Amino acid sequence: MTPYEVIRRKRDGGELSSDELRAFLDGYARGSIEEYQMAAFLMAVFFVGLTDAELATLVDVMLRSGVVVDLSDVPGTKVDKHSTGGVGDKVSLVLAPLVASLGVPVPMMSGRGLGHTGGTVDKLETIPGFRMELGLDEYRAQMERIGCALIAASPEIAPLDRRLYALRDVTGTVESIPLIASSIMSKKLAEGIDALVLDVKVGNGAFMDDEARARQLARTMIAIGRAHDRTVVARLTAMDRPLGHAIGNALEVEEAIAALHGGGPADLREVTVALAAEMLMLGGRADSLEDGAARARTALDEGRALDKMREVIEAQGGNPSVLDDPAILPQAEVQLVFEAPQEGTILAMDTRAIGVAAVELGAGRATLGARIDPSAGFHLTAKPGDRVERGQPLATIHARTNALAEQAARRLQAAIRIGEGDATPLPLLGERITG
Amino acid sequence: MTPYEVIRRKRDGGELSSDELRAFLDGYARGSIEEYQMAAFLMAVFFVGLTDAELATLVDVMLRSGVVVDLSDVPGTKVDKHSTGGVGDKVSLVLAPLVASLGVPVPMMSGRGLGHTGGTVDKLETIPGFRMELGLDEYRAQMERIGCALIAASPEIAPLDRRLYALRDVTGTVESIPLIASSIMSKKLAEGIDALVLDVKVGNGAFMDDEARARQLARTMIAIGRAHDRTVVARLTAMDRPLGHAIGNALEVEEAIAALHGGGPADLREVTVALAAEMLMLGGRADSLEDGAARARTALDEGRALDKMREVIEAQGGNPSVLDDPAILPQAEVQLVFEAPQEGTILAMDTRAIGVAAVELGAGRATLGARIDPSAGFHLTAKPGDRVERGQPLATIHARTNALAEQAARRLQAAIRIGEGDATPLPLLGERITG
Repeated sequence: MTPYEVIRRKRDGGELSSDELRAFLDGYARGSIEEYQMAAFLMAVFFVGLTDAELATLVDVMLRSGVVVDLSDVPGTKVDKHSTGGVGDKVSLVLAPLVASLGVPVPMMSGRGLGHTGGTVDKLETIPGFRMELGLDEYRAQMERIGCALIAASPEIAPLDRRLYALRDVTGTVESIPLIASSIMSKKLAEGIDALVLDVKVGNGAFMDDEARARQLARTMIAIGRAHDRTVVARLTAMDRPLGHAIGNALEVEEAIAALHGGGPADLREVTVALAAEMLMLGGRADSLEDGAARARTALDEGRALDKMREVIEAQGGNPSVLDDPAILPQAEVQLVFEAPQEGTILAMDTRAIGVAAVELGAGRATLGARIDPSAGFHLTAKPGDRVERGQPLATIHARTNALAEQAARRLQAAIRIGEGDATPLPLLGERITG
Repeated sequence: MTPYEVIRRKRDGGELSSDELRAFLDGYARGSIEEYQMAAFLMAVFFVGLTDAELATLVDVMLRSGVVVDLSDVPGTKVDKHSTGGVGDKVSLVLAPLVASLGVPVPMMSGRGLGHTGGTVDKLETIPGFRMELGLDEYRAQMERIGCALIAASPEIAPLDRRLYALRDVTGTVESIPLIASSIMSKKLAEGIDALVLDVKVGNGAFMDDEARARQLARTMIAIGRAHDRTVVARLTAMDRPLGHAIGNALEVEEAIAALHGGGPADLREVTVALAAEMLMLGGRADSLEDGAARARTALDEGRALDKMREVIEAQGGNPSVLDDPAILPQAEVQLVFEAPQEGTILAMDTRAIGVAAVELGAGRATLGARIDPSAGFHLTAKPGDRVERGQPLATIHARTNALAEQAARRLQAAIRIGEGDATPLPLLGERITG
């Protein structure tokens, strides 16, 4: 079958056999199929989708395009978590050591921030000395030794996915559920997991504002997992407001440390505990979700999660005293308090706009390769439904300059709607999808 | 607007402003927009189409990407005909000199055959000495002198269309009505026409088997014409059987010569006369379609069309004695009579399969650049609805070898369905579409 016929078959809604799709993808990897043919194929997939069998093949070819890490020497069921990304989402920083402290190995590879959401790599790199760019041998050895690693996605993992993603990024083919799902799953499968918990953000700060599409993404990833004999469980969580109070890299690390000490904002703890319960169930270390949640709360309150995080930081060259003294994290020059411009109820937040405002402060990247300011961001205590007085502090803006802080204040004012009436925030923990 | 945003806007069904689309196409022409971005854009257009305004812009940019021939020194309204392509379609060879002989200048640029249909260029090149590759100056001078030219599409005409077509050809984006229509119209507008008659083939030998899509193509071309102040009139004609009896290059020239002498198959003459009437109306040389048809018949019967063809052949270096002695055309070594394998009515023909069988004989190309056998083809006298006896000759196969001829006979047997019952051929002349 020629590349032309493959594209046409897909375009016209037909199904490609495993061999046909494999030959097409292999041809692309080897250079006999051109970028423009792949671009046309990806756009056809955007419109007509992929069948479950095609998805399984695509994932298989992408994951085998690089190193597939073998973690079979690490005892236990390896469980990772993936989030579709949100504003203030520092759950991984608490969840990974928490779950690992309860005996379930957590091999976690993360990305850098791009667009309006932050990235785990940028956050952890604010810890002095912390190395995210571990080699795969180091990664595997650390998993064997302490059962937890928090590293940046390795270029050896799924290079075909990396190449396809770069092409999708410039051809308007990112926003395709099968392509998103297969990209995530190929990397996760290659990192050596046995099971995965998916945190699907919904609401106006999520990549997928549409809840039906969020559910479809979850189901697609579950189907891919099934085809590769991996259990995937998804949970919808609210992203119609930032999670926790901190937005920005060092600020989020500080908040995660508070959570590891058994404190921190209630919503961050609640989401972390719920996802931990899922991971403990998948890892065979809890009898029920309730049991898992109880174990997770105890591990946070008794400092077991904190101890595991200390091991991780030490293993990756970071300064573990950050856990006792977060003030060693980068601090912003300017701190400006943002006050409620009027009395009323916080009716809604434009969460994406808040994320974009944080990027403008330097907390994230608008374009790949841009430098970030690790200390910049918001500490935003207001939540939809809160009753506020005029002049009441709602946020502290952390910035490099007064001008940036004042611009951010204007952005917050536009993004936070205060008035009379009832707020209708999404439930923090939404539907649970298990296929 | 970045290329990425242009692709996304189109993908999501939005309309691009003239400036936005122009900048995107110019960027592609200059090389700042990549082939893969254009491929993704074309696939998005395949799925969501183009608005009338976008179509007009696309056509304008393509036609201005090369030489736009100025035929204003040629007196009269210049009218061309375009056919969507069929099996045995040699209408242009009769129609162009016929209409020109009645005072309407006909500037006709044609293509080579590809796939199951023949091309006017391949046909005329069977005339000894006949040059199809005229320079644009020669072309213009010939139009001024004799009011008719039958040449191959010049590489100076609409080079952006040529480049886009080559990309579509390898990315599965050929079969898009707006892209087909804009490709045809950009070339036709650049060749210097004032009006166009479109022969839209319908039936199982047409490129568009679906009559609704054929109508949509006609309407799209009419809309493009309107945006460029050119009248386009379309006529649906039957292609559920070959047109005339001859299929193959020299054989079709011979049949066209018979028609120019006032003879030839009735269906060929009828389609030619109907299209001539349209062109004469557009050119202001007939008062009504009936008047135009009557003038056309007279011009054929009195030899005026033949005389004009003689002038064209002489002007383009061909041997005009072919018009009196078609035996100087290439002749096949082998002639095999194909007989009806059974008694009955010819219920239907697989016209595309007959075209493909002719290509196998060497009458056409399966791939660009393949060599053709000018003498090969069929002389097929049977038509759907004919009552035939077992053993009655239905066709003569003209071939280079006995093996090729025998293979062709098997193909004909499979393609011609004989049995009891009524045939339901399409009307030869179908709907007339004028916008």
